[in-house]
Amino acid sequence: MYNPPNVAVNPENMTSRIGLCGLAVMGQNLALNIAEKGFSISVFNRSSSKTDATVERAQKEGLGDKLVGFHEMRDFVTSLQKPRCVIILVQAGAPVDSTIASLSEHLEAGDIIIDGGNEWYENTERRSLEVAKKGLLYMGMGVSGGEEGARNGPAMMPGGLPEAYAAIEDIVTKISAQVDDGPCVTHVGPGGAGNFVKMVHNGIEYGDMQLISEAYDILKTVGGLSNEDLAKVFREWNAGELQSYLIEISYLIFEKKDDQTSEGYVLDKILDKTGMKGTGKWTIQQAAELSVAAPTMATALDARFLSGLKTERVAAEELYSSLRPTSDNTPLTDGEKAQLIDDVRQALYASKICSYAQGMNIIRNKGQSMGWNLDLGEIARIWKGGCIIRAGFLDRIKKAYDRDASLASLLVDKEFAEELVSREGAWRRVLTKGAFHTLWSDMQSADSITTTHYNR
Amino acid sequence: MYNPPNVAVNPENMTSRIGLCGLAVMGQNLALNIAEKGFSISVFNRSSSKTDATVERAQKEGLGDKLVGFHEMRDFVTSLQKPRCVIILVQAGAPVDSTIASLSEHLEAGDIIIDGGNEWYENTERRSLEVAKKGLLYMGMGVSGGEEGARNGPAMMPGGLPEAYAAIEDIVTKISAQVDDGPCVTHVGPGGAGNFVKMVHNGIEYGDMQLISEAYDILKTVGGLSNEDLAKVFREWNAGELQSYLIEISYLIFEKKDDQTSEGYVLDKILDKTGMKGTGKWTIQQAAELSVAAPTMATALDARFLSGLKTERVAAEELYSSLRPTSDNTPLTDGEKAQLIDDVRQALYASKICSYAQGMNIIRNKGQSMGWNLDLGEIARIWKGGCIIRAGFLDRIKKAYDRDASLASLLVDKEFAEELVSREGAWRRVLTKGAFHTLWSDMQSADSITTTHYNR
Repeated sequence: MYNPPNVAVNPENMTSRIGLCGLAVMGQNLALNIAEKGFSISVFNRSSSKTDATVERAQKEGLGDKLVGFHEMRDFVTSLQKPRCVIILVQAGAPVDSTIASLSEHLEAGDIIIDGGNEWYENTERRSLEVAKKGLLYMGMGVSGGEEGARNGPAMMPGGLPEAYAAIEDIVTKISAQVDDGPCVTHVGPGGAGNFVKMVHNGIEYGDMQLISEAYDILKTVGGLSNEDLAKVFREWNAGELQSYLIEISYLIFEKKDDQTSEGYVLDKILDKTGMKGTGKWTIQQAAELSVAAPTMATALDARFLSGLKTERVAAEELYSSLRPTSDNTPLTDGEKAQLIDDVRQALYASKICSYAQGMNIIRNKGQSMGWNLDLGEIARIWKGGCIIRAGFLDRIKKAYDRDASLASLLVDKEFAEELVSREGAWRRVLTKGAFHTLWSDMQSADSITTTHYNR
Repeated sequence: MYNPPNVAVNPENMTSRIGLCGLAVMGQNLALNIAEKGFSISVFNRSSSKTDATVERAQKEGLGDKLVGFHEMRDFVTSLQKPRCVIILVQAGAPVDSTIASLSEHLEAGDIIIDGGNEWYENTERRSLEVAKKGLLYMGMGVSGGEEGARNGPAMMPGGLPEAYAAIEDIVTKISAQVDDGPCVTHVGPGGAGNFVKMVHNGIEYGDMQLISEAYDILKTVGGLSNEDLAKVFREWNAGELQSYLIEISYLIFEKKDDQTSEGYVLDKILDKTGMKGTGKWTIQQAAELSVAAPTMATALDARFLSGLKTERVAAEELYSSLRPTSDNTPLTDGEKAQLIDDVRQALYASKICSYAQGMNIIRNKGQSMGWNLDLGEIARIWKGGCIIRAGFLDRIKKAYDRDASLASLLVDKEFAEELVSREGAWRRVLTKGAFHTLWSDMQSADSITTTHYNR
C-alpha cells in the first residue's frame, strides 16, 4: 500500500493527545485548529483519500509535525495517549453508530468518545449507556460556526459526564472562539444536554434568518430599497444593537456582484427555495412537547416548508394574479422611507428578543424536566463568539440571567421589557405596513365589497 | 354477589351483536346509541358500578331489552355473536394495552377489537400487529362529537383492515350522524389512518376555537361589543357562510347568564386558563415531520400554552403596565363598528379556509408517506355532521376535492381562491385594527422614540 508522507501504517512511538475521525470539511478544519493550538492529533477517515488530503493541508499550513493520518482504525486508535479521546464528526444517525462500533473494537475502559455532530439528543443518551457497558465515556458536543468556525474557533456545547469533559477541557477551551469573558465553551450538562442546546441554537438561527429575510422583504417591497441601499442600511445596523454575524454577512451578500456573468447582483439570482436539516424541526417538536410557545421559530420553519413548494407557489401566483386587481403603489417619500428603515430596525430587534426568549425557555423547560441543572446565562455567554448566532445582544441575555437566574422569560427582564415597550410603536407600524402596502389601492375599494360567494 | 336486573353473570342463551368495554360517559352514550338503533349490545367496565349505571340508564330510556351488562370479562366476551366485535373506550395509552390483554384471553381468531379513543396512530399500528399474532383483527376508530354526539350520532373515523370494517359497517353507518349525502362514517384507510385523521380533526378544532376567540377578542376590545351584542352578531353569522356547531355554541355561551349568583354572564367569570389533550400537540409535531406549514393550528396550541402561564402573565402585565403610558381609545362610531363586525366575519371565514387547508395537507402528506390512499373529499364529507367541527363549509371542501382530488392546497381551488381574494381587504383591515387599536394613542408619540438602550 502506498502511503503518502506522514500517513502512518503502524506507528511505533506515536502518541497523539487526541484523535479525530471523520474528515469532511468540518472535521478537517477542526483537526487543523487543534493542531494549530499545539495539540498533537491523529486523524482517520473511512475512505483514506480524505485522510491524505487532511495530511496534505496540515503540511501546507505548517502543521505537519502535529497531525498524523492513519489508514487503519486500529493504528489510529493505538496512536493515542490514554485515556484515548476521539472526536467523531460523521453524519448524524446510523453513521455515528457504525463509527462507534468500529472504534469500540479497539478502545479500552476509560477511553472517551466525543460526537461533534448535530445529533438528536436521545441518540446520545442511548449511546452513552451502550458504551458505558464497555467502560467507555461518551459526550455529545454541539459545534457551531460552520467550516470557518471549525478552523478558527467555533462555539462548542459539550454534554456528558464531567470526567469526560475534564479530559478534553484543555483542548476545547483553546480551540473554541475566545470572547471578553472567556472561551466559547462550557460543560453544558449531563447526557444529551449539549446536543439539545445546539439543536435550540439552530432553531434560534432559523428564527434570526427568517426575521432578517422579512426585514429585507419589507424594505425592498414596501420601501423600494435597492441592494446597495440595503447593504448601507444593514452596515449601519451592524454598528448598533443588531450587531451580529448574520447581519454582517447579510450586507456582504447584498452588495455582492455576480462575477460569473458580470451582470447584476448574486442575491437576485438565487432560487427562493431552501431545504433544512433536522434541528429546526426538532426544536419545534420539542417546544410543543414542553408546552413552550415558539411562534418565531415555528414561522421560520414554515417559511422553509413553503419555500420548498416552488412549483405550487408559481401556480398559485398565476391563479391569484388573475383574480386580483393590479396594485398600484405610490413610492414612499424620502421621509417615509427613512421612517420605515428606522421602524424596521426596531421591529427586527424587538422580534429578536422574542425569538431568543422562546429559545431560552425551551432550553430551561427541557433542563428542568431532565434534571440537567443548566446555566442559561452561561449558555448565552458561550454563544457570544464562534457560532452562527453570535451577536453583541447575547451579552445582554447573559446579564439578564445574571440578574435573575430564574426569569420566567427574557420578556419580563426589566431592561428587555423597556426595550420592547420603547420599540412597540415602530414594531406595530411595520406590521401594518407589511399587511397593507401591497394591496393599498385594493383596500380603498375593498370597503365596498360585501358580496360573498356562499350562496352561489 | 348482588346482580341488578339485566346484569348477567353467566348468561346461557345470550348473544349480542356487539360489545362495548369502558363505560365512562362517552362509552355509556355510545352503547345506548347502538342499542337505540336496534343492535343488541353487551357492556362491561372494570369497576362494575359503571356497568350497573349503564344498565339502569338503558332501562330508563326503554332500551333494557337491547343492552345487557356483565361483571366478568369472560361472561362479557362469551355473550357476543361470532366473529365477536368489541369496541373499547378507555383512556388512551397503557389502559388500552391492558384492556386488550384482558380481552385477548377470551377472544378467538377472527374476532375484532375496535379502539374508539383518541389514540396515537402508531400505538394502533403496533397493536394491530400484536393482536394479529392471535388471529385477531384490530381497528383504531376516531369518534368525534363529545358526549352528546356519542349518544345521538357522532362522526366516526375507523381505520384498519377492510374485513374488520365490513364486520361493523351496518352498525357504524346507523349510529353515526346522518347528513344529506350519507352517514358520517367511512372506512378511512388501513392501520392507524383513522386515529391520524381524528387527530388532525382535533388540530383543526383547536384552530377553529382560537379563530373564534380572536374574533371575540377584537369585537370586544376594539369594537366595544357587549356579550348581548356578540350573541346577536354570532347568531347572524351562523345563518351564513360561518354556519357551524362552534359558532352556534359560541352565541349560546355569550348570552348565558350566571344562574349561580344571578349576576352577570358566565363567560366573564371563566378563568382564562386552559389545558390540552395530546392530539393538538401531535398534530403540530406531525406537521413539522411532514414539512407542512400549519401556522393557524400552531398558534392555537401556543395560545393554550400561554393561557396556562396565568401567574407569569399576571406578573408580566404588572411590569408592562408600569412601563407603558395609559392608552386612551376613542370608542368607534356606529358606522365603524358595523364595518368592523363585517370585516371580522370575513376575516374569520378567510382564516378558516387557511386553517382547513393546513389540516387537509397534513392528512394528504401523511397518507402519501404511509401509502394509505386517503380520499380527502370523503374525509371532509364525514365531518359534515356529528363532530365538533361540523359546518356547512365542509360541503364546500368536499366539492373542491370532488373537482380535483389532487389539489395542492384548498387555497388554489378556484372557488376558495375567489372567496379569499374578495375578503382580503377586510382581512387586512382586521389585522391592522388588532395590531394598532390598543395602543393607538401611544403610536402617535412612538414616532418620536429613538432612544435605544443598547449603549447604556
